[in-house]
Amino acid sequence: MATDSGDQEVISNKQIIFKDYVPAFLQESDMFFSTSNIKLKVPPATKSVLVKNLYLSCDPYMRNRMRNLQDSYISSFKPGSPITGRGVCKVIDSGHPGFSKGDLVWGMTGWEEYSLITATETLFKIHDRDLPLSYYLGILGMPGLTAYAGFYEICSPKKGEFVFVSAASGAVGQLAGQFAKLAGCYVVGSAGSKDKVDLLKNKFGYDEAFNYKEEPDLDAALKRYFPEGIDIYFENVGGKMLDAVLLNMKLRGRISVCGMISQYNLEQPEGVHNLMQLIPKRIRMEGFLVPDYFHLYPKYVEMVLPYIKQGKVVYIEDVSDGLENAPAALIRLFTGSNIGKQIVKVAYE
Amino acid sequence: MATDSGDQEVISNKQIIFKDYVPAFLQESDMFFSTSNIKLKVPPATKSVLVKNLYLSCDPYMRNRMRNLQDSYISSFKPGSPITGRGVCKVIDSGHPGFSKGDLVWGMTGWEEYSLITATETLFKIHDRDLPLSYYLGILGMPGLTAYAGFYEICSPKKGEFVFVSAASGAVGQLAGQFAKLAGCYVVGSAGSKDKVDLLKNKFGYDEAFNYKEEPDLDAALKRYFPEGIDIYFENVGGKMLDAVLLNMKLRGRISVCGMISQYNLEQPEGVHNLMQLIPKRIRMEGFLVPDYFHLYPKYVEMVLPYIKQGKVVYIEDVSDGLENAPAALIRLFTGSNIGKQIVKVAYE
Repeated sequence: MATDSGDQEVISNKQIIFKDYVPAFLQESDMFFSTSNIKLKVPPATKSVLVKNLYLSCDPYMRNRMRNLQDSYISSFKPGSPITGRGVCKVIDSGHPGFSKGDLVWGMTGWEEYSLITATETLFKIHDRDLPLSYYLGILGMPGLTAYAGFYEICSPKKGEFVFVSAASGAVGQLAGQFAKLAGCYVVGSAGSKDKVDLLKNKFGYDEAFNYKEEPDLDAALKRYFPEGIDIYFENVGGKMLDAVLLNMKLRGRISVCGMISQYNLEQPEGVHNLMQLIPKRIRMEGFLVPDYFHLYPKYVEMVLPYIKQGKVVYIEDVSDGLENAPAALIRLFTGSNIGKQIVKVAYE
Repeated sequence: MATDSGDQEVISNKQIIFKDYVPAFLQESDMFFSTSNIKLKVPPATKSVLVKNLYLSCDPYMRNRMRNLQDSYISSFKPGSPITGRGVCKVIDSGHPGFSKGDLVWGMTGWEEYSLITATETLFKIHDRDLPLSYYLGILGMPGLTAYAGFYEICSPKKGEFVFVSAASGAVGQLAGQFAKLAGCYVVGSAGSKDKVDLLKNKFGYDEAFNYKEEPDLDAALKRYFPEGIDIYFENVGGKMLDAVLLNMKLRGRISVCGMISQYNLEQPEGVHNLMQLIPKRIRMEGFLVPDYFHLYPKYVEMVLPYIKQGKVVYIEDVSDGLENAPAALIRLFTGSNIGKQIVKVAYE
């Protein structure tokens, strides 16, 4: 309101600051907790939006923004500034005609209590409030669309095909596997603990699942689960698993390369030795990024919402409570401690 | 003729015998010269064809048949038996209604003077005799169709795109590069000697070419020749070159994986470290084998014949004279001593 004085609107704002570029294994100490001040009003004559952050998303791609990137599709985080990522937020003040005070939105925000968002084109209003708000960081957000595009658009699945998903209980993997089941495929997933394997089989409906950490020979494990070979590999991990998968692909198999999380903390990525398999097996291997498929988001939501409401697709989240726990939550992705989509709850609505 | 006696028809038949499976670097001593006898008549009541071999083809894929293969798309050569491969042959006798004495054919035959061919479905009659017969092992045969399918079908080229071809003066590479020029692309090739580089620039019309053996840093070399990056990579070599190419691919680049000749003589293939590039650059990497494109052969010949006759596409062959020199000729592919398509001339028509 015009009658508010400037001083009254300034409050303290807790933040998670990115310290400096990280060449090898990411640690909590690469981020630190700090407090600054923020004015709870958008600057006059701007179209920016001021939000209160409710949920923040921890995603593997964020690790890459912690490198000193040149000529990359994404920009590096700025040392000394708050980490940025997707979040669910409540609008506190708006200079943008498309957003009003009280609106709930999801999009790119900061790892802090309050954020002034100038890149409002990344924000989407939340209309359907029947479902948990955090779903907009997972099944109803980018991980959901990633699984949808990566599976349906890149893999061209056919009923009865044999599908393998790595990091199969993760934010994307759990959906890739469930979409593969809905498509009538036989689906096996790998994950890094007994609890995750149980989840894959008992919650997500995978036909089979295994703990890769307990398999000294990944090639032998895949031969056991896919005696006839793999038609589709939804790749989330890279490295040794990819090498073993290449040995077990079927003729005209497809590999949708969504991520290679096993490599993100290495200074030099591991070598993959079995690429010659691509030739006799006519394998197609294709990398993708979800922004190329934003136009499919309405179609995706139209498909997935009824499935969620009918309980035919489920989504597991791992929620860490409190902004101060966000650095540890992010690292959980790389140690594999999270079970399901990793989220940080910052505040109640 | 029915009046011939059996004895009269038997003559000596020089052969190149495959000794035993080869795990590492192929050597001449893995093959040996021998002489057996052959009856110059097809067995009664069979549909086989007896041919005199005129030209034999040396192709990189043959190296893989010298391994002890299980579950492969091709079968291993049989130790103690003649090597098999494509050849141009003259029909001496035929039990098959589709072939007559005196016909010239190309297809799968043996590394010997005379062969009895039972798999006649691999034989094609040669009608057009205006061109060198050996062309049916190169530009008018499988290498030609390989370059055509691998470039046009897998790479989806667009005018003005930046194309890189490795092993660029080889049987397939020299055509991939020329087809890319015909498609209006900017084309750079790599090869392993100054003579080959000269050939690429002065004979095949590559825009630029370099000797990879003189480049201590392949990444830097590619950055020099492709400051804007590579749209299409026609992959013939694998290993370190592939790793460097991955770093230099453009957004939505395509890699047509035709071969990885640098790896064929290694017991353990080299590791490729830069596959993470597939993701942000949305690279599609696809292996292929020419038999999948046999149906395009008439269309390909229709395209390429006028180009050959007008001199718009040229083809360089490296012809070794005499069956006894065939083992050395095959090995030339892996040492890179051949310049152009490696052929063995066995006999005059």
